[in-house]
Amino acid sequence: MSAHLPPALDKLATLLSRLPGVGARTGLRWGFHILGGPRAYAEDLIQALRDVLDHVHFCRECHHLSELEVCPICTDPGRDRGIICVVEGVVDVLALERSRAFRGRYHVMHGVLAPLKGVGPAQLKLDNLEARIEADGVAEIIVATGADVEGEATALYLARRLAPTGVRVTRIATGIPMGGELEYLDDHTLSRALQGRIVLESGV
Amino acid sequence: MSAHLPPALDKLATLLSRLPGVGARTGLRWGFHILGGPRAYAEDLIQALRDVLDHVHFCRECHHLSELEVCPICTDPGRDRGIICVVEGVVDVLALERSRAFRGRYHVMHGVLAPLKGVGPAQLKLDNLEARIEADGVAEIIVATGADVEGEATALYLARRLAPTGVRVTRIATGIPMGGELEYLDDHTLSRALQGRIVLESGV
Repeated sequence: MSAHLPPALDKLATLLSRLPGVGARTGLRWGFHILGGPRAYAEDLIQALRDVLDHVHFCRECHHLSELEVCPICTDPGRDRGIICVVEGVVDVLALERSRAFRGRYHVMHGVLAPLKGVGPAQLKLDNLEARIEADGVAEIIVATGADVEGEATALYLARRLAPTGVRVTRIATGIPMGGELEYLDDHTLSRALQGRIVLESGV
Repeated sequence: MSAHLPPALDKLATLLSRLPGVGARTGLRWGFHILGGPRAYAEDLIQALRDVLDHVHFCRECHHLSELEVCPICTDPGRDRGIICVVEGVVDVLALERSRAFRGRYHVMHGVLAPLKGVGPAQLKLDNLEARIEADGVAEIIVATGADVEGEATALYLARRLAPTGVRVTRIATGIPMGGELEYLDDHTLSRALQGRIVLESGV
């Protein structure tokens, strides 16, 4: 970016400017901030990056992020094993947990069906969903994708796909503003949407 | 921030959210971005932070940031050693270099006089300025602080302080919008401000 900066600082600023929504000037400002601030902050940042790279991965069961092979939500004996909430991403788990409206377990797909973007069922983390349903005798799958076209299509796909298992597939209620993202909902709206869920028709 | 995140990721998000202008949600989003992106990016970020901590410090002469004991600008034989431009911060060096209007050397104070904030001359990196003037037979000091109250006061202070050395102390011209910051000026305005500099009266 600048020939008049130490290369190491220039490199740091360039890397920071690649974060979403960050430009060259902000990246540089943060480079100065990190360099000019307490050394402990930069050391902590290095350690946190190291730890995230080395220790955080996906839960074998639900694919939420975890430092354990199976995440604390999946192993929590206080949670209902008979109900699984299928969500698009990790941020949706966080939003639902904040709402305290759900006491079952999750299944994080890490995406929704989006044929135009090349995302089909094989690109989602769904391989072990049927196995989980069978192993735990799951009675209900709540599909908590967003109320946009892709979220709705994914919900219908899951209802059809899971019909052979005999599980009841439900959809969180409207109450989600159409076109909205789950991540930005307030807790109250999320609670109401969970309570008002409806049974999906699995065939057409 | 969240009890439902792996501690390492939570820690990383918290650290990122301490950067200026960044909140908890953005910090978390970047945590996901770093975790979900190419591993090489995160490794590069760690290395850049490490390099900045270990190798970047202040130039012994001008106090600009450098990986060398004396920075490349100070040792550049193509630059006029008879003229020094005194600036508030590193970003001002970058702005002036971008303008290509100055071919002397710099002196970075890392601040301006601000008595109300407890910043006096001792808090600025001015200790070796007289020694530099003497060692290199400097004929002119251009004070390129911002055109705000603190920048003007610092310019007057320098004119008085340096009077015994016999050096000519000049001030970059108006052309800087009053109250504006040097960092955000366009190159043309900076060039004109340098060319229109005027001699300061050292006594009152």
